[in-house]
Amino acid sequence: MSSIFEEITFTADGLVPAIAQQYDTGEVLMMAWMNAESVAETLETSQVCYWSRSRQSLWRKGETSGQVQNLVELRVDCDGDTLLLLVNQTGVACHTGRRNCFFRALRDDELKTIADIEIDPGRLYKN
Amino acid sequence: MSSIFEEITFTADGLVPAIAQQYDTGEVLMMAWMNAESVAETLETSQVCYWSRSRQSLWRKGETSGQVQNLVELRVDCDGDTLLLLVNQTGVACHTGRRNCFFRALRDDELKTIADIEIDPGRLYKN
Repeated sequence: MSSIFEEITFTADGLVPAIAQQYDTGEVLMMAWMNAESVAETLETSQVCYWSRSRQSLWRKGETSGQVQNLVELRVDCDGDTLLLLVNQTGVACHTGRRNCFFRALRDDELKTIADIEIDPGRLYKN
Repeated sequence: MSSIFEEITFTADGLVPAIAQQYDTGEVLMMAWMNAESVAETLETSQVCYWSRSRQSLWRKGETSGQVQNLVELRVDCDGDTLLLLVNQTGVACHTGRRNCFFRALRDDELKTIADIEIDPGRLYKN
């Protein structure tokens, strides 16, 4: 087992926030949470696995939708309480069918949608 | 007051994670937490203000060190539970004197330091 687990400070709930960034463009795709088990699985498989707080279960990103994230590199911040995942995103990261989850920008004091839907969510979650 | 507060889902503690990204290079600088007051101050002043969980007080980034973050754009994710701050970072974001906080990368199963100290921390916090 990697010694990285000694360097990660998990919350009282055993979680750590993880930022997914497209490794070559720098685009911030999403932020989600991981527990030790999901970190271990991600490192073993090189496919990103989060922890779903709503479902209280491992969340193998793209398992249903096919929009997987291949891990390129895992980084840890200075305090050990946030992870940065450099990934190669297949298709789209967001369940809305947009490339990334941060598609609402505050402009002129209003949230504007600044990214188009690239894949119909109905196609992503058709089962 | 901006309607953005209706779109942000704060934790039970009244906080929301905020990722700071250098607006022009895409570099992920750091992740910290904000409460409603710090979001409001950030929008009013265009200088990023976080909430320090350790000090339980507003954390005006760079107030002591001079390493301020000017807000270029604020974005909200699909669930409203994470913010992405596009900023222009003066100097370095990390208290270690490195440009960003994610300077440790897992390579060959070990965390390697991949960024140099650009400013002596002793100079950043000399008072």
